[in-house]
Amino acid sequence: MTNLHTLKIAYIGGGSKSWARSLMNDLALESRISGKVALYDINYEAAVQNAKIGNQISQLEEAKSNWKYEAVSTMEEALSESDFVIISILPGSFEEMASDVHTPEKYGVYQSVGDTVGPGGFVRALRTIPMYVEIANSIKQHAPDAWVINYTNPMSLCTRTLYEVFPEIKAFGCCHEVFETQSLLAEVVKEFLNEEVAQRSDIKVNVLGINHFTWVNQASYQNIDLIPYYKQFVEKYAETGFEKEEGSWKNSVFSSCQRVKFDLFKKYGVIAAAGDRHLAEFMPPIYLKDPETVSSWKFHLTSVDFRKENLKKRISENEELAEGNHKFEINSSGEEGVKIILALLGVEEVVTNVNYPNKGQIEGLPLGAIVETNALFRNNTVQPVFAGRLPLDIHNMVHRHVLNQESALQAALTKDKQLALNTFVNEPLLTVSREEAEELFDEMLKNTKDYLPGWAI
Amino acid sequence: MTNLHTLKIAYIGGGSKSWARSLMNDLALESRISGKVALYDINYEAAVQNAKIGNQISQLEEAKSNWKYEAVSTMEEALSESDFVIISILPGSFEEMASDVHTPEKYGVYQSVGDTVGPGGFVRALRTIPMYVEIANSIKQHAPDAWVINYTNPMSLCTRTLYEVFPEIKAFGCCHEVFETQSLLAEVVKEFLNEEVAQRSDIKVNVLGINHFTWVNQASYQNIDLIPYYKQFVEKYAETGFEKEEGSWKNSVFSSCQRVKFDLFKKYGVIAAAGDRHLAEFMPPIYLKDPETVSSWKFHLTSVDFRKENLKKRISENEELAEGNHKFEINSSGEEGVKIILALLGVEEVVTNVNYPNKGQIEGLPLGAIVETNALFRNNTVQPVFAGRLPLDIHNMVHRHVLNQESALQAALTKDKQLALNTFVNEPLLTVSREEAEELFDEMLKNTKDYLPGWAI
Amino acid sequence: MTNLHTLKIAYIGGGSKSWARSLMNDLALESRISGKVALYDINYEAAVQNAKIGNQISQLEEAKSNWKYEAVSTMEEALSESDFVIISILPGSFEEMASDVHTPEKYGVYQSVGDTVGPGGFVRALRTIPMYVEIANSIKQHAPDAWVINYTNPMSLCTRTLYEVFPEIKAFGCCHEVFETQSLLAEVVKEFLNEEVAQRSDIKVNVLGINHFTWVNQASYQNIDLIPYYKQFVEKYAETGFEKEEGSWKNSVFSSCQRVKFDLFKKYGVIAAAGDRHLAEFMPPIYLKDPETVSSWKFHLTSVDFRKENLKKRISENEELAEGNHKFEINSSGEEGVKIILALLGVEEVVTNVNYPNKGQIEGLPLGAIVETNALFRNNTVQPVFAGRLPLDIHNMVHRHVLNQESALQAALTKDKQLALNTFVNEPLLTVSREEAEELFDEMLKNTKDYLPGWAI
Amino acid sequence: MTNLHTLKIAYIGGGSKSWARSLMNDLALESRISGKVALYDINYEAAVQNAKIGNQISQLEEAKSNWKYEAVSTMEEALSESDFVIISILPGSFEEMASDVHTPEKYGVYQSVGDTVGPGGFVRALRTIPMYVEIANSIKQHAPDAWVINYTNPMSLCTRTLYEVFPEIKAFGCCHEVFETQSLLAEVVKEFLNEEVAQRSDIKVNVLGINHFTWVNQASYQNIDLIPYYKQFVEKYAETGFEKEEGSWKNSVFSSCQRVKFDLFKKYGVIAAAGDRHLAEFMPPIYLKDPETVSSWKFHLTSVDFRKENLKKRISENEELAEGNHKFEINSSGEEGVKIILALLGVEEVVTNVNYPNKGQIEGLPLGAIVETNALFRNNTVQPVFAGRLPLDIHNMVHRHVLNQESALQAALTKDKQLALNTFVNEPLLTVSREEAEELFDEMLKNTKDYLPGWAI
Ligand SMILES: [Mg+2]
Ligand SMILES: [Mg+2]
Ligand SMILES: [Mg+2]
Ligand SMILES: [Mg+2]
Repeated sequence: MTNLHTLKIAYIGGGSKSWARSLMNDLALESRISGKVALYDINYEAAVQNAKIGNQISQLEEAKSNWKYEAVSTMEEALSESDFVIISILPGSFEEMASDVHTPEKYGVYQSVGDTVGPGGFVRALRTIPMYVEIANSIKQHAPDAWVINYTNPMSLCTRTLYEVFPEIKAFGCCHEVFETQSLLAEVVKEFLNEEVAQRSDIKVNVLGINHFTWVNQASYQNIDLIPYYKQFVEKYAETGFEKEEGSWKNSVFSSCQRVKFDLFKKYGVIAAAGDRHLAEFMPPIYLKDPETVSSWKFHLTSVDFRKENLKKRISENEELAEGNHKFEINSSGEEGVKIILALLGVEEVVTNVNYPNKGQIEGLPLGAIVETNALFRNNTVQPVFAGRLPLDIHNMVHRHVLNQESALQAALTKDKQLALNTFVNEPLLTVSREEAEELFDEMLKNTKDYLPGWAI
Repeated sequence: MTNLHTLKIAYIGGGSKSWARSLMNDLALESRISGKVALYDINYEAAVQNAKIGNQISQLEEAKSNWKYEAVSTMEEALSESDFVIISILPGSFEEMASDVHTPEKYGVYQSVGDTVGPGGFVRALRTIPMYVEIANSIKQHAPDAWVINYTNPMSLCTRTLYEVFPEIKAFGCCHEVFETQSLLAEVVKEFLNEEVAQRSDIKVNVLGINHFTWVNQASYQNIDLIPYYKQFVEKYAETGFEKEEGSWKNSVFSSCQRVKFDLFKKYGVIAAAGDRHLAEFMPPIYLKDPETVSSWKFHLTSVDFRKENLKKRISENEELAEGNHKFEINSSGEEGVKIILALLGVEEVVTNVNYPNKGQIEGLPLGAIVETNALFRNNTVQPVFAGRLPLDIHNMVHRHVLNQESALQAALTKDKQLALNTFVNEPLLTVSREEAEELFDEMLKNTKDYLPGWAI
Repeated sequence: MTNLHTLKIAYIGGGSKSWARSLMNDLALESRISGKVALYDINYEAAVQNAKIGNQISQLEEAKSNWKYEAVSTMEEALSESDFVIISILPGSFEEMASDVHTPEKYGVYQSVGDTVGPGGFVRALRTIPMYVEIANSIKQHAPDAWVINYTNPMSLCTRTLYEVFPEIKAFGCCHEVFETQSLLAEVVKEFLNEEVAQRSDIKVNVLGINHFTWVNQASYQNIDLIPYYKQFVEKYAETGFEKEEGSWKNSVFSSCQRVKFDLFKKYGVIAAAGDRHLAEFMPPIYLKDPETVSSWKFHLTSVDFRKENLKKRISENEELAEGNHKFEINSSGEEGVKIILALLGVEEVVTNVNYPNKGQIEGLPLGAIVETNALFRNNTVQPVFAGRLPLDIHNMVHRHVLNQESALQAALTKDKQLALNTFVNEPLLTVSREEAEELFDEMLKNTKDYLPGWAI
Repeated sequence: MTNLHTLKIAYIGGGSKSWARSLMNDLALESRISGKVALYDINYEAAVQNAKIGNQISQLEEAKSNWKYEAVSTMEEALSESDFVIISILPGSFEEMASDVHTPEKYGVYQSVGDTVGPGGFVRALRTIPMYVEIANSIKQHAPDAWVINYTNPMSLCTRTLYEVFPEIKAFGCCHEVFETQSLLAEVVKEFLNEEVAQRSDIKVNVLGINHFTWVNQASYQNIDLIPYYKQFVEKYAETGFEKEEGSWKNSVFSSCQRVKFDLFKKYGVIAAAGDRHLAEFMPPIYLKDPETVSSWKFHLTSVDFRKENLKKRISENEELAEGNHKFEINSSGEEGVKIILALLGVEEVVTNVNYPNKGQIEGLPLGAIVETNALFRNNTVQPVFAGRLPLDIHNMVHRHVLNQESALQAALTKDKQLALNTFVNEPLLTVSREEAEELFDEMLKNTKDYLPGWAI
């Protein structure tokens, strides 16, 4: 029995500018658990700053629990005696990310995010995997019984690496993309059934696929099958797209009008359950042919320059916060991390979607591959819920990515450049010639070589 | 969307003297659904009588919903347009059951129930399977979209036959044995933690195995792991047994003091989650060596004469009830059938144990075998929850029964007497010589030959 | 026991202009078996002509056995009481084939054969599958115990269809492409070891993959591992290509200089064991980018006009032969059909490569998919030999085709145009935009619509 | 390329009194290979003696090749630079073997061999597995590329242990029991077809099962299916048994009249392909009920006293031989070890039965379990041949033993006495009460405790 008020959470990547704040808020809003959070980051100063912010949040009147935040200087220190480990790191700097996203543009290959699949996601994976090897080994040594929650992308390969290195690890990955789909379905209910859905989780969905290329083949609200209503919704909004506030998609590079999602439904008959920016990258360059095409589908390419600007803002905001110059407001993040922690502590059981090794929950995908389905969380257990089989045509696309991820992992672990290249060229987004693909690959590898020790680059 | 107040339930075996009453009670206590129940039984009069009783219950003041009961004379009539099908039949008469249970006693083979495994369960399966072939074909034709809930034993083989004949069937089997284990664990909480568990389902268990030979390898209450407490409990009560009221086990042939369960924990380290009478039959004759041994383990052989007497009582009680000579009281049965029906109608989701084809929820057992694990019930879906792998020594025992069940099914479907015999002799309870086993087999087959058309007996 | 001298072979597609002759020759050269051959063809006249030719061959002095050839007018007549069934049909006419091969050229998509994968192979499959459904049903009814040998392309899908319709069928598919690889390895032995290999089959190879995209990861001659020598060979000839007679590749559209094969070895490290024309079609348009690229890799696009011309020649040649105006010469065809028939008759056992459902002989590919590996042929049995696992990067490419083939089959069986389209766009050769792909698909379907009854075209 | 005349064979258990001689003879009769044999034995003197004998055999005029034998004092010395490793050890002394075979007799449990399954085989396994752990580790370190041939019993568990410890090992196990079945089938051919089979291997059999409980479901000679003839043969000889020379079975404790084999065919319809002494031990005590029953089935219990006497004779014989006091004769042993070595050296390919991890060659048995089927041996490869699925009733019996073997392995590796006991009681031969089984287990463990370091005995 774990004492609910002396918990220790280790946060790897604890200098993070966004996820860390979400966690701090959500913890502060939950009275049933408390304890301390050890923040570890290769940028120690950032962790120190976050600790300051966290401790101030804890002091706020609205805070329902008192968590103590502390920056630590080694991973071991963070992990030792922790009950939970949260991993949310930036693999490399914005320089490498800029190469991931923008180098392919020279070859006419556009990516909306560049952190999961596509040339950018692939190269990001190559440099992230060794970091996760190190983390997994450290967890094996210092916190083998802790629950490990991953938030870093590429989600599937990060989680897969943890299990490859330490098969007994108690790890899974969380992502909020499916929540958006539930919210969208709540809009469908509103529109066609004239009912206000009380909370997102009242929309029941069967989730199956892989992270950011996740599908929903069953959706219901109470005793209402939502698939036929979604079909009508798609028919109505396929061309214009759907937004809560008209035109608002233009205000944020992270927004879209769901047109990619609707088009995929028209083509494949099942709900694609991730944001358009992610979905587009798993397909051949239908939606990402060029910037004009992207605009016509009403979503955005996210430039790394934008991210840099954005980060600057957040850094100065954080500085202000850390120094106590700003009044905080505690808002629930919409993430489920704390809810899941509660379930793992036996406080209340929850069924939600999660990235986890395939134990058979998706039929036809290889056992051990990291897949996204619902799981049942209870005291000290996560148990995937059987999700069935994807429709054949979607299965084939998903399976292709699963295969690429497996060989990307092996290439990264063995530093096998030829295997890496032979996998890289399988990315559906990459329809350039083999010669160009090889050239691009070489250039991208060079740009990230600081994080690829031991490779023949 | 199914209308929650015009439901149709088909009840195959609707003349039943016990399960039918449980259902009537539970339906009457649930205000959120209503409709009609078609009772079909080869004994039409019994169905008529139950219809009368059911309709009277519906009229009672305490009844929260108004269900209409009707006896029908064909299975087709019952099934047509039904939303749910409940199957709870007596395969054959008490004469055949008497042979199942008592013929082996001539050879020194004792059985406490004789309806699941052992020589009795095996022969019962041979005669039940053709009935389930007929039912499955009828469902395929008349109610292919209905949800089918089986209560008949042998549970695994009945459910397995449904899927063999009609693979797209939406069927599962329910049994309350695990609930008793949860209740026992609630007693453990009371004894060692001094806390009163509000409801049985607050005890969370991971269920895995096959019906009546089901195991629990994880059990918790809130954030408390109950396994170490169960261990203490077993140590304390292994010799004396455990009862809520001392000596009460002697008052009912269905009662026990859990000594078999405790002994299995001592031998195998995991909680056996069924009644002692069932568990004993899956093992070699450790607990069923002879009547004295049975008594020493503080459980009972259930004689079929007793069942006959018991039935007579219930029949006359029913007659009284049907004629309206008695005041009814509506009591919840403790079964979960109605709760599951509610979940399948999207009213509220539930996680509970169920008998269902193995989709991988138990690692290492053949896919398609009927296994018992938790499942998530939601609007129009049942999804098994991944349960993991049994400890090797238990796995071996369970697997042996799974293999026997598969060849029993094939023997029954092909009327292959040699295969049947070669399977019969694999029953762990049967340690007589091969010659005696063959003789016993012949005798038992002869006794049940009215239900084995086409066999060379 | 089958009488070796009263055999009956049914030949479906018995009007064939090439395979039929190969069989006639090989049968005539084998003294240990004899009997009759029933030739069935939708072009009855062509079958009659072949029967005449066959019977003349039987009369020749060099003929070691006397086979009787007869044209029959129904498939049933051919199949009844047959011991072996050979299937070698032309699915559709040259008009459809012309569309398969040349319509994609309008979109810049070039194919060297167009009968296996790529847009042409895919559409060919859609029209061939219904024919194979009919053949399989006829075999099930009229010759369920016969051995069935398929020679038609697309090999994998033809054979897969036979098993889908009649799972107990005793069928497999034969293709000579691997033999060419053995012959090439014999050249390697000659060049580097200065030894003349007596016969092709003395080169032992481990075969794994799918038809026409088959790989050899182990090759030996006596106790010599040939892989290192093949590596040297590739290094020497990668640029120039290899031919026995210099320049001879230009004399036949079916010839090549193995440059594709060598390049694949350089990229993937394992021997690609099919002709360059076939291999190129399984890859993205590396080798088939445009006609100039094809020439630079020293192989050919096979135009259907050429095939038409070629056929005309063969027809007039056949007419001459049928009328007895020509002197025959009996030459062994180099095919292994008769050798395998001998093995299945218990005359002598043989190990050779074959297309057969995956029973696990290739690890990691789905069970039931038609794969190509070695098998052991003995009296009345074919047993695949365990071949292991492909290297990850090759596995991914092969698996992608396997997945496409499975959904092509389902699309063809259910006449599901959307599924067909969603599969079509997965062809690696097709890197045009989604819009163009849809347009091309529609055009190609229209061109073959005579063979797609029931489709919404 | 391995030089065929500078081979090195390591012989673990090189002091052996019988297998070593077989190998020496077979090597001497084969001209195509030569080299040296390093004999390692914990009894160094015995190895020295065998070296002397081996070198004398090499000198004989009839010897076709010159092998040099040398006794070495460490396993490392034997293994280093070896091309082949042969393992044939006696695990423990005759004292432990006497306990294995005879201690159960006190409880009425009789065993005819006691080295594979049954209480004796089980306990033998417990003490052998640690020895194989050591051997496997040594091979991993000193001869990772060598081919390893196991002859020690329990065959399945010895081979399984090698793979558990060193998964990349190139190991398999050889046993001659199936050969006897081929010879018996040659007698069937003689009797009913009046033909003399030239060599045993002309009888083609499909082998499937586990060592000593191996089955043949297809058997042919040329184009003749032998199963119907075997059926007649069994009908004729079931009661009397079959012998080449009448009454000869009484002259050797290793002989039988095949009555067990015939009875199993009558019961299960498939040929049991091992000696009666082995087969009987896998079944419940049908054939081994008591010594009288054994006699009535016309086979023998092999007492360890007999083995001791027998060994004494062989020792003195060996001494004479070693001293050169006797004239040698070189006779082929009938074993296939050398033939397989030739195949692995690329000299000539062979298909024969072998014990190897299940890669899917037997459907329905767990992957990785050591099963016995045919395999194709070629230059540096062994590849199992797909054997199909056992009939359900036999499958169940075989599977039960496979499960026991897996948990025996785990018990031995983890020294888990409770798991060992829970596995021990699953032995079909053991139908005593649980109490007696526990007592017997304790006694047997104590008797072998010198070989169970680290166990809580
Ligand atoms: Mg995400
Ligand atoms: Mg029950
Ligand atoms: Mg071909
Ligand atoms: Mg043996």
